[in-house]
Amino acid sequence: MTTISIIGAGNMATAIGTRAAKHGHTVEIMSRDTVAARSLADRIGATVGTYGSAPAGDIVILAVLSAGAVDVVRSYGEALAGKTLVDITNPFNADATGLATTPGNSIAQQIAAAAPAGTHVVKAFNTIFGGVLAQDKPMDAFLAGDSAEARARVAAFLSSLDMRPLDAGGLEMTSALEWAGILLVGVARNGGGFDIALAAQPPS
Amino acid sequence: MTTISIIGAGNMATAIGTRAAKHGHTVEIMSRDTVAARSLADRIGATVGTYGSAPAGDIVILAVLSAGAVDVVRSYGEALAGKTLVDITNPFNADATGLATTPGNSIAQQIAAAAPAGTHVVKAFNTIFGGVLAQDKPMDAFLAGDSAEARARVAAFLSSLDMRPLDAGGLEMTSALEWAGILLVGVARNGGGFDIALAAQPPS
Repeated sequence: MTTISIIGAGNMATAIGTRAAKHGHTVEIMSRDTVAARSLADRIGATVGTYGSAPAGDIVILAVLSAGAVDVVRSYGEALAGKTLVDITNPFNADATGLATTPGNSIAQQIAAAAPAGTHVVKAFNTIFGGVLAQDKPMDAFLAGDSAEARARVAAFLSSLDMRPLDAGGLEMTSALEWAGILLVGVARNGGGFDIALAAQPPS
Repeated sequence: MTTISIIGAGNMATAIGTRAAKHGHTVEIMSRDTVAARSLADRIGATVGTYGSAPAGDIVILAVLSAGAVDVVRSYGEALAGKTLVDITNPFNADATGLATTPGNSIAQQIAAAAPAGTHVVKAFNTIFGGVLAQDKPMDAFLAGDSAEARARVAAFLSSLDMRPLDAGGLEMTSALEWAGILLVGVARNGGGFDIALAAQPPS
């Protein structure tokens, strides 16, 4: 078990933080909204870190909205050096039928460009609805990122949460993950319902 | 059961044609390569249609490579009027880490623009490896297309093949399906192996 820092105190921060704490990790919550950070930390038995200062964990979950993720990384600056940043964002367009990003310039790639040297970026959790994640059942979890070592670190974290990591490859594959979020919402809206998770398994 | 026309005689034409024939459909094979068409038809008990003339089936599977799909539709021209065209292509870039298409101009959208009036386009089968499809096991099958009626028609066909149709929505969602093909290959290459199918199910 390890220390996980989560920047954010919203729905996905709650779902990931709850699941991480339940599976034995030490969780640190950091948010500009210090009241929300304290409230979430108290609910799940986490500590509260100071927004903008060096996170306690080697893995830092950026549980903020896509529009603000790069600014958060810039505002932390060198405090994130050497960390493995986990981008969970879904940069959907207004009706969630396409992306606000373009291939080669995914949010994960923008974060990697804004992060200090020696920082790694892995995209994960964006193919799972918060409500499904919170159920704490086994499920598949896709990830992609800029180094095999960082992906292995995040994969181990996902496994510790009783999730099956599916490594999709390098940072360029984060666009595929962003589109996977769109696909999941499309299926959910067109009869699939929102109690589903994207998976990739041998047919049985 | 119904009549299904397949344009093409390669691996995906073989996998889809074999599965369709096995599940009781009448299958017509059409290919510029008349020898390959006859060979495939004889193997699976299908008929051979004349390339470029009106297909016998209301559902026409365009089982050709992405680079040639639009030209095939143009060469058929009015012979495809009123049909439901099924685009199965994966327009990958050279190393399969991104697409050769752009959002708003997916292969399915290019086919829809090239097809005669009254023709519908549905993208399906592109999230399933041919070798997995050929196993004839139950599996999830994502689809998207330009009309709810055409999607329902293709969904019924998929169900008849013992596949679970997952409707992702309108024609604009075909970009998400193209990226889903990239994601699947990424997972397959990075430890997942090629005996997998993309799925979306309630966690269990």
